Amino acid sequence: MDDKIKLLETFENHFPERDFTILHTCHEFTSLCPKTGHPDFAVIDFEYIPELLCVELKSLKIYLQSFRNDGIFYEHITNKILNDLVAATQPRYFKIQAKFGVRGGISSIITVEHFKEGYRK
Amino acid sequence: MDDKIKLLETFENHFPERDFTILHTCHEFTSLCPKTGHPDFAVIDFEYIPELLCVELKSLKIYLQSFRNDGIFYEHITNKILNDLVAATQPRYFKIQAKFGVRGGISSIITVEHFKEGYRK
Amino acid sequence: MDDKIKLLETFENHFPERDFTILHTCHEFTSLCPKTGHPDFAVIDFEYIPELLCVELKSLKIYLQSFRNDGIFYEHITNKILNDLVAATQPRYFKIQAKFGVRGGISSIITVEHFKEGYRK
Amino acid sequence: MDDKIKLLETFENHFPERDFTILHTCHEFTSLCPKTGHPDFAVIDFEYIPELLCVELKSLKIYLQSFRNDGIFYEHITNKILNDLVAATQPRYFKIQAKFGVRGGISSIITVEHFKEGYRK
Amino acid sequence: MDDKIKLLETFENHFPERDFTILHTCHEFTSLCPKTGHPDFAVIDFEYIPELLCVELKSLKIYLQSFRNDGIFYEHITNKILNDLVAATQPRYFKIQAKFGVRGGISSIITVEHFKEGYRK
Amino acid sequence: MDDKIKLLETFENHFPERDFTILHTCHEFTSLCPKTGHPDFAVIDFEYIPELLCVELKSLKIYLQSFRNDGIFYEHITNKILNDLVAATQPRYFKIQAKFGVRGGISSIITVEHFKEGYRK
Amino acid sequence: MDDKIKLLETFENHFPERDFTILHTCHEFTSLCPKTGHPDFAVIDFEYIPELLCVELKSLKIYLQSFRNDGIFYEHITNKILNDLVAATQPRYFKIQAKFGVRGGISSIITVEHFKEGYRK
Amino acid sequence: MDDKIKLLETFENHFPERDFTILHTCHEFTSLCPKTGHPDFAVIDFEYIPELLCVELKSLKIYLQSFRNDGIFYEHITNKILNDLVAATQPRYFKIQAKFGVRGGISSIITVEHFKEGYRK
Amino acid sequence: MDDKIKLLETFENHFPERDFTILHTCHEFTSLCPKTGHPDFAVIDFEYIPELLCVELKSLKIYLQSFRNDGIFYEHITNKILNDLVAATQPRYFKIQAKFGVRGGISSIITVEHFKEGYRK
Amino acid sequence: MDDKIKLLETFENHFPERDFTILHTCHEFTSLCPKTGHPDFAVIDFEYIPELLCVELKSLKIYLQSFRNDGIFYEHITNKILNDLVAATQPRYFKIQAKFGVRGGISSIITVEHFKEGYRK
Repeated sequence: MDDKIKLLETFENHFPERDFTILHTCHEFTSLCPKTGHPDFAVIDFEYIPELLCVELKSLKIYLQSFRNDGIFYEHITNKILNDLVAATQPRYFKIQAKFGVRGGISSIITVEHFKEGYRK
Repeated sequence: MDDKIKLLETFENHFPERDFTILHTCHEFTSLCPKTGHPDFAVIDFEYIPELLCVELKSLKIYLQSFRNDGIFYEHITNKILNDLVAATQPRYFKIQAKFGVRGGISSIITVEHFKEGYRK
Repeated sequence: MDDKIKLLETFENHFPERDFTILHTCHEFTSLCPKTGHPDFAVIDFEYIPELLCVELKSLKIYLQSFRNDGIFYEHITNKILNDLVAATQPRYFKIQAKFGVRGGISSIITVEHFKEGYRK
Repeated sequence: MDDKIKLLETFENHFPERDFTILHTCHEFTSLCPKTGHPDFAVIDFEYIPELLCVELKSLKIYLQSFRNDGIFYEHITNKILNDLVAATQPRYFKIQAKFGVRGGISSIITVEHFKEGYRK
Repeated sequence: MDDKIKLLETFENHFPERDFTILHTCHEFTSLCPKTGHPDFAVIDFEYIPELLCVELKSLKIYLQSFRNDGIFYEHITNKILNDLVAATQPRYFKIQAKFGVRGGISSIITVEHFKEGYRK
Repeated sequence: MDDKIKLLETFENHFPERDFTILHTCHEFTSLCPKTGHPDFAVIDFEYIPELLCVELKSLKIYLQSFRNDGIFYEHITNKILNDLVAATQPRYFKIQAKFGVRGGISSIITVEHFKEGYRK
Repeated sequence: MDDKIKLLETFENHFPERDFTILHTCHEFTSLCPKTGHPDFAVIDFEYIPELLCVELKSLKIYLQSFRNDGIFYEHITNKILNDLVAATQPRYFKIQAKFGVRGGISSIITVEHFKEGYRK
Repeated sequence: MDDKIKLLETFENHFPERDFTILHTCHEFTSLCPKTGHPDFAVIDFEYIPELLCVELKSLKIYLQSFRNDGIFYEHITNKILNDLVAATQPRYFKIQAKFGVRGGISSIITVEHFKEGYRK
Repeated sequence: MDDKIKLLETFENHFPERDFTILHTCHEFTSLCPKTGHPDFAVIDFEYIPELLCVELKSLKIYLQSFRNDGIFYEHITNKILNDLVAATQPRYFKIQAKFGVRGGISSIITVEHFKEGYRK
Repeated sequence: MDDKIKLLETFENHFPERDFTILHTCHEFTSLCPKTGHPDFAVIDFEYIPELLCVELKSLKIYLQSFRNDGIFYEHITNKILNDLVAATQPRYFKIQAKFGVRGGISSIITVEHFKEGYRK
C-alpha cells in the first residue's frame, strides 16, 4: 500500500505567490472492509491550498481507484490519503472529508486536516 | 448492563499525532421504556476525536443492539453509552446526541459531551 | 407464530353500509433477519376497506411488537401480517406495503393485496 | 352524542343551479381515545358539492369543538361527522378525510364519501 | 350589490377564432364576515377562455375592491363574482377559485365553473 | 391550578457530575382562551440542563393534558409551566418556547428562560 | 386617528421579575394608500419584552382592523403602531416589522424598534 | 439624464427622532444596453434609514420607469440611482443592490452604499 | 462469468397462491468499463412477482459484488443479471432497471423485463 | 494565450470615490483538458470592487469564449483569468470562483482572490 503514492502525479503551480483554494469531490470511492471483505463506498472531499505543486486530476482518480480491492478501516484510509497527498504536493493546507454509506444501519464521516508548519488559514 | 462494554472492540489509531474527527450515525437504535415496556426508537450521532484507539464499527453495532430488550430512560441510555465509549476508547473528545421518536405526542433529543482532562476543541 | 393473531382485537364497524378507506402507517416496525439474527427495520402501510369489523389500533401496535424478536424473511412477514389481518377483520379489501431499511447496500419494498371474493375496488 | 347535529347551522345556497365545490380544512380537531382516555389530534378536510344548503363556518367550528371531551374511535368520528353533515346540508356530494397524529408509532388517515342518490361526479 | 357589475369594463378580443386561456390571480382580496363583521382575506384565481370580450384588468381590481366593506359568505362571493364576470364577458369557459385564510382554525377553498352552452373544454 | 405541579414526576439523574442537555417537544398542547372559551393549540419546546432530577416523560404528558380545559393567557401558561418544571426538577437551566396557532389572523410565540443562581451556560 | 390607542387592552403580566419575549405575527393587515386611495396589505411582526403589562390579543386584532379604511404612508403606520403599543404597555423592548405587498412593481419592509430608557437586550 | 431627480418626490418623516429601516424592492426595472441597444432587466433593492424625508413610492416608480429607453452601464445606473436618492432624501444611510438578468450567459449583481458623514450603523 | 448464478440462493415462497410484488434496490453496484478498465457505478432496481422461489437478499448482495472486477458493457450487465435471476427464481415477472453514473458528461439508464410465458400483469 | 488580455475592454468608473461591489456570473464557460483533449465545463463567478475601470461585459464574454479550444488545467485557467482581469481593470479587490463539472467521478471548485496593495475589505 506504500507504493500507491507513486500513482499521484503533480504539475507545477504557476501561481505560488498567491493563496488559493482547490476543492475536488470524488463521488465514487470504493474499498473493502478489513473485517468482512465486503465493499465500502464513500464520497470524498479534497480541499487544499497549494504551494509549488498541484495534484493532477486523472492521476488522483487512478490513485483513488487503487484502493478498490484493499481491506482498510475508514479512519486509516482517510488519514493515509491525506498523508500521501501532503507528501506528493507539500501544500500549505489540506483537508479531507470522507462520507461513507450505511453499514449495519450506521453511516460515517471522517474529517482530517493538515497545516504546513507555521501556516494558518 | 455493566457487561455491555465488553462488546465494544477497538483498533489502534495509526495517526494519533493528529486531531481528527469521526462521526458515526446509527439510524436504527431501539430499546424499551422502563415505565411501560413498550419499544423506543432513536437515531444516535457519535462524534469523537480519538487518541490511541478507535471503536470498531461492527462491534459498535452489536453493542447498540444489546439494548434492544433493556428498559432504560432516554437520559440514562445516552449517558451510559457515552461513559462506555469513553472507557473503551479513551478519546480526546466524545459527543453523543440521541434523537428519540414521538411518544404521547412528545419527541426528545438528549445531548451529552466528554472532554479528556485538559483537552479543549 | 400462529398465535400472534390472538393479539389482534377488533371493534364493530358502525357504518358497514358504506365503503370507506382506513390507512394506518406504522413508523417503527422491527424484527430479526432469519439468516444473521441481526435486527431489521421497516415502515409499514395498512390500507383497507372494512366490512363488519375494524382492527383496534392499540392491539395492532402490540401485534406488530410481537415480531420484535422473531427471525423471518421480509416477504413472509408481509404476507403473514396480511393473512392475520384478513382473518381477524374479514375486510372487503386490504393492502400492506412494507418498506425495509438498507442491508448490505440494498433496500426493499414488499407489496401485498387481498380482495374479498367478488369485491372489486 | 346524537344532539351534536343541532349545533350545525346552515344558510341557503343562492346558486343551487350550479355544481360547485367547497373545501374546508380544520387544522385543530381534538377528541379522546375511547380505550385510554388520552387526547387524539387530527387535521380534517371537508369537501362537498352543496344542493340547497351550505354549512355555516362558525357553527362547524363549534360542532367540531363539541368532540373535545368525547371518547370515540377514529373510524366512527369520521363516519359520524359525515352523516351529520349530510343530514344537515343534504348535499350532492360530501367527502371527509381525517388525518390523525402518531399514537404508539402509528399514524392514521380515514377517508369517507357520500353521493346523493343518482348523483355522480 | 347588484350594481357592482357596472364597474367591470371589457375590451374586444381580436382573436376569437382561437381558444386561449387567461389566468388572473388576485393576491389581496378582502371582504367582511356576514356573521361577525370581522374582515376575511382570500387569494382568488380567475381562469377563462374568452369569446368576443376580455375583462379589463384595472376595472377588475376596482370591482374586487368594491367588496372591501361588504358582509357576504365565501360561497356567495365566489358565485356572485363568477356570475358578474360571465355576464360582462360572455366567455366560453370561466373558473373561479377563492382560497380564504384561517378562521377559528379552519381554512376554505371555493371552486366554481361556468361553461357556455354547448362548449366543452 | 396550583395543584398541577403534583402531576409532575421526576427520576434521579444518575449523571449529575456532567452538564448535558435534554430537549422535549410537545406537538399537541391545547388549552382554552380566557376571553372567549375557544380552544388554543401550541407546539411547546422544553430544553433543560438537569441537576439531580429529570422530569419523567409520561407525567409531563399528563401534566400538559391537565391544561386541556383551563382558560389561561398564552403568556401566563408559558411562565407557569416554566415555574412548575423549575420547582419540580431544580435544574441548572430551563427554557420553554410555546408556538401558538393563528387566532384572528395572528400567530404567537412566547419564549421564557430560567438560570439556577450562579449558573451560566 | 389619535383615539385608536383606546382600542388596545392590556392585562397584568404575572411574571414581571423575568425578562421574556412575546412575538405576535398579524398575517392580514390592510390600510389605504394616502395618495391613491387603493388598499395596501401587510404582514406585521410584533416582538416585545413586557414589564408590567401585556397587550391582549383580541384587542390588538381590533386595533389593527381600525386602520382598514385609513389613508396613511407605510412608514407612518409602522411608527404610529409602535408608539401606541409602547404607550399602552410600557414595555422593556418593542420591535415592529411591517412587510407590505407589491405596488407598482415595488414591495416594502419597514422595521422600527423601541428600548425603555436604560434597558439593553 | 440629470433631470430625472426632479421626478423623485418626498414626504416628511414624522418620526425623525428614531433610527428605522425602510426596504423597497423594485421587481421590474428595465433599461437598455449602451453597447447593443438591447433591453436589460433587474431587481433592485433600496434599503435606507431616513432622516427628515422619505421617498414617496409612486414617484420612485415613475423615476425608475424613466430609465426605460436610456442606454447605460449596470455599474453607472446603480451609482446614479444611489446619488439621486441621497440628494433627494438626505438619509442617514442608503444601500442599493441591483441584480441584472443573464446576458451572453453572464448574470450580474451591483451593490453600492452611502453613509451620512459621521453616521455609522 | 457463467458461474456467478451459483452465488444466488433462493428460499421457498410460502404464499405462491397470491401475486405480490418485491422491489429490491441496490444502491452500491460497481463493475469495470470493458473499453478503459475504469470503474462504473450504478443504482439497480429489482422488481418481481415470485412464483415458488424468492431470491435470498444476502446472496443477491454477494452475487452483485462478484461483478466488481469484471469488464462488461452496461447493456450486457443488465440483461445478464435479469437472465440469472429469472433462471434462479423462475418468477411470474421480473424487471431490472440499472441507473449508471456520469461518464464523459453522459448518464445512462437500462431497463429490461421478463414475463413468464402466458403471464400478464 | 498571452494575447487574450487584449480582448478585455474596460470603461471608466464614474464613481471611483466609493467602494462598491460587482458580481458577474458566467454560466457557460468551456475549455479543453490538457491531458485528454476532452471538453471541460464550468460556472465562474467574478466578484470585484473597481477603482478607475470596470470590465465591459460583452468583451468579458468574448474573452471567456477564447478559451474554448485551449488545453489548460483548471487551476491555471482560474489564476490566469484573475491575473488578466486584475491587469485590465486594476481593481481594489477581485475574486474568481470556478466550479467545474464531473470528470472521472470527480468535480472541482477553484477559488482565487486578489487585493490591491494596502487595501483590505
